[in-house]
Parts: sequence; structure tokens; C-alpha cells
Amino acid sequence: MSRRGLLFILSGPSGVGKGTVRKALFEKEGNELKYSVSMTTRNMRDGEVDGVDYFFRSREEFERLIEEGKMLEHAEYVGNYYGTPLDYVNQTLDQGYDVFLEIEVQGAMKVKEKVPNGIFIFLTPPDLGELKARIIGRGTDEMSVIEERMEVAKQEIEMMSHYDYAVVNDKIELAVERIEHIIESEHLKVSNVLAHYKEMMKEW
Amino acid sequence: MSRRGLLFILSGPSGVGKGTVRKALFEKEGNELKYSVSMTTRNMRDGEVDGVDYFFRSREEFERLIEEGKMLEHAEYVGNYYGTPLDYVNQTLDQGYDVFLEIEVQGAMKVKEKVPNGIFIFLTPPDLGELKARIIGRGTDEMSVIEERMEVAKQEIEMMSHYDYAVVNDKIELAVERIEHIIESEHLKVSNVLAHYKEMMKEW
Repeated sequence: MSRRGLLFILSGPSGVGKGTVRKALFEKEGNELKYSVSMTTRNMRDGEVDGVDYFFRSREEFERLIEEGKMLEHAEYVGNYYGTPLDYVNQTLDQGYDVFLEIEVQGAMKVKEKVPNGIFIFLTPPDLGELKARIIGRGTDEMSVIEERMEVAKQEIEMMSHYDYAVVNDKIELAVERIEHIIESEHLKVSNVLAHYKEMMKEW
Repeated sequence: MSRRGLLFILSGPSGVGKGTVRKALFEKEGNELKYSVSMTTRNMRDGEVDGVDYFFRSREEFERLIEEGKMLEHAEYVGNYYGTPLDYVNQTLDQGYDVFLEIEVQGAMKVKEKVPNGIFIFLTPPDLGELKARIIGRGTDEMSVIEERMEVAKQEIEMMSHYDYAVVNDKIELAVERIEHIIESEHLKVSNVLAHYKEMMKEW
């Protein structure tokens, strides 16, 4: 059975703990998900490996890939591009692996335009009061900065309606389990196994 | 949170082990699914309780419910009607419970007509050779009877395309776990939690 892998996208509001949950998911025994390697135009640092930490590319090449529609999503940060190369994702899916992206809400919506059959998981705080506390608790920021972050978080939560699943991040282990069960269930969808059964029927 | 429950329908070809899997699922600790009580026109037997084992009703009332479209599905067997009453299912869902039906493929397709947003799970044999063995192994039936059953099983497997999920019944415990994970994932669907989050947003 060489079925194509599935593309999972984990996203959610800033400060909800996406990175921590993704890390815990990948560290679990038996994890077979492939984390998508990002592409960047920034310089390679000591110890970094091209194709492992990032795909390191020139600004010209990165811009060419954007123009050709070969970046699933991208953003510019401190003068450098960062993004998810479409070809790498497709090759990994073709090899039968599930690919897992952990990205910001804005990026996730761009991915949805290009891969509508991706499975979009929205990580949410246990309650919005909790998220508020996390935003305020980050440091000694001015009230206007906090309010701006609150407004951004509110807008991000409203993006939930574009996602397939909402996973509450009340406890990391529980959030990870929920995501694992979503991944399992998606593989049990008839749309993903029908071709295989039709093949078996021929032999009957 | 008084959310409406979800309707799950477990079905699959004859002899695949639907009843055994359903029983094991319901016997698991923490099970909160409600099994739909069927309605019948046959006489109540000693020890049976109306509304527990079956809803015992007259032929006239059963036929009236069919005419009024108030049976989710029904069949006649040895001169008696058997079926799933729609009102009972709806009331249980309204109370916030998930309802679980375990029925034949023909009945499941009738349920789909009336409740398209039900979650349809197709239980499949590990491989079709295994199903063949189970059909043949049932007793000392004539070859023509076996061939007829094989043809029926083949047609039933082709019905899989109308379902949402396909669960392999390789081991009962594994099949039960897969169904539990499907149930959990369905509850995590954004379509099922969005109203709740919109309510929380108001308080922000």
C-alpha cells in the first residue's frame, strides 16, 4: 500500500503554545510525522545543515519560487524571507509520509488557498481569560501594546471557522493525544481508503 | 455547555462482527454513548421491559409512525416490524448525549437519507479472504447459499463509499479504540464547537 500522506496544519493565536505542542507530538514514541523543513534567505549559522534546519537559498531564488507559486506560504522578518516550499511538501506526501506544519494563522490561511484538502487544526486556549492572562503576563508592556495584542488574538480566534478541528491546549499531553486521534481518524476516512478496497475487490 | 449530541451509525457487511464490537465499546469504562432502543411489534417476552429492551408497540401504531416518517429505518422480519424511532433518537441527542446505532447496511442507507449529518462508520473485515472464510465457516451450507451470501457481502462492501469512516475489525480492542478516536475527533470538529467559542468571545 503506497498511499499518499496527509498534510496537517497546526495553527492558532499567538501565545497559545503551538511550538510546545508540536515539539511534544514529535518527541512521542512511534511518531511518524514529517516536520516540514522551512526555507530561508538568512545566512547559515554554525552547526546548521542545509535541508535539515532550513533550506538556505538566495533572495533571488526565493523570490523566483514565490512568483512561480512554489511557496505554500511565506513571510518577511527582519529583512529575510521565511517560508514553506511546496515541492518538498509534495515529495514527502508522495513518499507516503504525513507532513505536519506548525505555522501562524496568516500563513495557515495561505496554505488553505493552495491545499484545500489539508487538515487544519486550530489550537485554542482553555478559555479566553487564560489567553488574556498569558498576553498580559508576558512582561511589563504598556497598556496600549497589551490592548493591541488582545485585538490581534481576538481576530485570530475568529479565524477558527476556517479550520477543520479545534483542539484545546489545557494540558500539553492531552492536546497531543487529541491531535494524534485526529490524525488516526483522518486516515480512517473512507475517502482515504476506498481505492485500496476497490483494489482488493478485484481479487475476489 | 448543553451542546447537542452526535449520531453515530455503525454498520458493515453481514458476519463482520458489528454486534461484538458494539458490545465491547459499550462495556468500556467511561462509555457515555446511548444505544438507541429499537421499536418492535412482536410480543414482549418474560423479563423484557418496555423502553429498555424494545419499545413494544402495536402493528397499527408502528405503521402509523412509518407513514408519518417517524421511523429512521425499519424492516419486517418473521411477520413483525423492527425499527429505530426518530423521536427517541432526537430526544436523546437534544439531552446532549451521543446516540449510537448498530444496524445493517440497508438500514444505514435509510438513516443517511433522513440524517445526512450523522457519522457513518463502516466496519470491514481485515481482508476479503477473511470475510469469505467467515461466510463459508458459518455452517454446512450448500454452495449456492454460500455464493449468494458472497454476492451480498460484495454488494455491501461496495456501499462503503457512502460512509464517512472505514474501521478494520482485525482485533476487537483495536476496532473499539478506532471508533472511540473517531467519536473524539468528531467532537473536536470546528462545526461542533464554534457556537461555544462565539459565546465566550462576547464576554471578552
